[in-house]
Amino acid sequence: MRDVAIIGVGQTKVGEHWDVSLRHLALEAVQAAMTDAGVTRTDALYVGNMLSGELAGQEHLGALVADFAGLRGIEAFKIEAACGSGAAALRMGYVAVAGGLADIVIVVGVEKMTDALGPDTTMALAMAADGDYEAAQGLSFVAINALLMRRYMHEYGYSHQDFAPFAVNAHHNAMNNPHAMFRFPVTAERFARAKMICDPINLLDSSPICDGAAAVVLAPADAARTLSAAPIRIVASAVGTDTLAVHDRRDPLVLEGAALSTRRAYEQAGVGPEDIDLFELHDAFSIMAALSLEAAGFADKGQGLRLALDGEIGIDGRIPVATMGGLKARGHPVGATGVYQVVEVVQQLRGLAGANQVPNARLGMAQNIGGSGATVITHILERMED
Amino acid sequence: MRDVAIIGVGQTKVGEHWDVSLRHLALEAVQAAMTDAGVTRTDALYVGNMLSGELAGQEHLGALVADFAGLRGIEAFKIEAACGSGAAALRMGYVAVAGGLADIVIVVGVEKMTDALGPDTTMALAMAADGDYEAAQGLSFVAINALLMRRYMHEYGYSHQDFAPFAVNAHHNAMNNPHAMFRFPVTAERFARAKMICDPINLLDSSPICDGAAAVVLAPADAARTLSAAPIRIVASAVGTDTLAVHDRRDPLVLEGAALSTRRAYEQAGVGPEDIDLFELHDAFSIMAALSLEAAGFADKGQGLRLALDGEIGIDGRIPVATMGGLKARGHPVGATGVYQVVEVVQQLRGLAGANQVPNARLGMAQNIGGSGATVITHILERMED
Repeated sequence: MRDVAIIGVGQTKVGEHWDVSLRHLALEAVQAAMTDAGVTRTDALYVGNMLSGELAGQEHLGALVADFAGLRGIEAFKIEAACGSGAAALRMGYVAVAGGLADIVIVVGVEKMTDALGPDTTMALAMAADGDYEAAQGLSFVAINALLMRRYMHEYGYSHQDFAPFAVNAHHNAMNNPHAMFRFPVTAERFARAKMICDPINLLDSSPICDGAAAVVLAPADAARTLSAAPIRIVASAVGTDTLAVHDRRDPLVLEGAALSTRRAYEQAGVGPEDIDLFELHDAFSIMAALSLEAAGFADKGQGLRLALDGEIGIDGRIPVATMGGLKARGHPVGATGVYQVVEVVQQLRGLAGANQVPNARLGMAQNIGGSGATVITHILERMED
Repeated sequence: MRDVAIIGVGQTKVGEHWDVSLRHLALEAVQAAMTDAGVTRTDALYVGNMLSGELAGQEHLGALVADFAGLRGIEAFKIEAACGSGAAALRMGYVAVAGGLADIVIVVGVEKMTDALGPDTTMALAMAADGDYEAAQGLSFVAINALLMRRYMHEYGYSHQDFAPFAVNAHHNAMNNPHAMFRFPVTAERFARAKMICDPINLLDSSPICDGAAAVVLAPADAARTLSAAPIRIVASAVGTDTLAVHDRRDPLVLEGAALSTRRAYEQAGVGPEDIDLFELHDAFSIMAALSLEAAGFADKGQGLRLALDGEIGIDGRIPVATMGGLKARGHPVGATGVYQVVEVVQQLRGLAGANQVPNARLGMAQNIGGSGATVITHILERMED
């Protein structure tokens, strides 16, 4: 097995791109990543995407994006793991390069959620949950998260307002990210007044429906130095899964898939939570941010929210999260999100995060979650010293 | 890189399983393969599937099938490449084992096409084609193949009736396959009278809409001997892609993606078409069978149909195809097909193909095609001598 490095990154602005098609979004990110990496060819292309069939009337994205990006002929597939599709595609790219089956792999996550041809987007997103035992019973995806949030509040004695710091932090950080969807601040007062979506989840607990694409170029780490001025090593790539339906879990407030995925990643990298300088977590809903912090070992059970309340999730806090806006404010084009997270960790480790730079960031972790914790993919990245 | 072997196979009967859900189909194939391999655990599960979101209202099949099969916790993703999804999932499993990132991998292809929740199945299948430039112009997937078939007849001077041998051969072979959907013979006369579907494609030029699942268990070849009484080595695993839209190709009657995929497979295995004892080709429509024979080097341009007319595609012919019924008569549950093909090659190489046994079969090739040739995945399998 070889060490793998990221030698280039690219991303589109996240937003409602009514005038841009899925293939154009993917192309923009792929071209930007190839330019950043200085490569003109690749051995394979893996596309992370969840809903192209349902919303854009298009499957077969591997061949589509390969051809549209001028890469006709190469190996190209779509990888799907619900909202974890982006990092799942990265995982497949990592496997191919680490195992020596490919030297250069491009991974692109793309999702086109506006201008949907297919079913209602809320119905489509419920396909991340258990179709027979959750969605068919009338549970939307936000409703499942609302049940988890209500349970968390009940179990640990928090108020809804206690979740405000996640939205405040994410929006604060997004202001300095030119690729973010929501570049405006949110105060705790505004959070308190936000429209209710699915009680107790309000508008500012929720990530938006949006469009976007992000891409990375992978290469063997030993070749990366000659290919890139600032290669970033992937020191861990790990997956954990759990039941699709939340009601099948031993404890609905414990993300066992996330705990498993993170533990495997820590073991692979030989590090622990205390070594991580920033954590791009999967804050699709604020309850997921709290549960992720606990599953990844940054807080005890029921204490993930406390970390946020104590001001420890900001750029200068104990564990900075959503440093470029997170799913909440950068935006959550579902199948693209896992790649956006990794692109942002790369920006931090390259020291190019501008006003949001985490001081002396050396190790960054990105964790992408499919469903309500059923698939969890964790990557730990490290700055390669000269 | 390590050699990879198949140590177990499993499959459901192909058909219209109105009373069986997608997860149950997948479970049956996975359990059969695990029993055949004698394994009770796996490092990863890759699920080949195209249309679960559109037709069954369910994405996130990796975690779903892993959990339902009692494998909760493991790495599990869905891999999609239209009708090539099954072999694409196998390719990902091969990459993981060959590269040393996993020791045991289960690959399952599954498709549930009857009892569809979503859009019309013909519309869903058109998502294998170019959504903006083919499907949105009113071209269904069968219509694209009909245009190719008409062009082939015009260009090379064949009649529609000349295509009869593909259906006759496939139905003949399916009679001895207990897992096949259509276990009845078809004569050239019946072919001539079959209902027209999309001129010139008639009912007997077409594979059926159906349900099914097939699975294989992969392991490193050096460990395979102790794990299995009859391991089969994967001597080539290769992918080629082409334009999604047929009108973008240099010559619509040349499957360049298939030629590329096959050439890469031959190079990897160090063999040529003359060494292949049987060829499970992608006969979704009879025109695809003819074009595949040409792209894979078994016939010159325009001569694939001649091979069939000359009686060379039967079990005792120069290149036996669809030896267990093919897509035409075993059935074509789209995302499962690529794995069915490989399971059938394994049956042949193990000498367990019964009345359809290809004498002294040593090298078998399976080729799974996504779209009208946009993604082509080729696997060459070899009997491991004692």
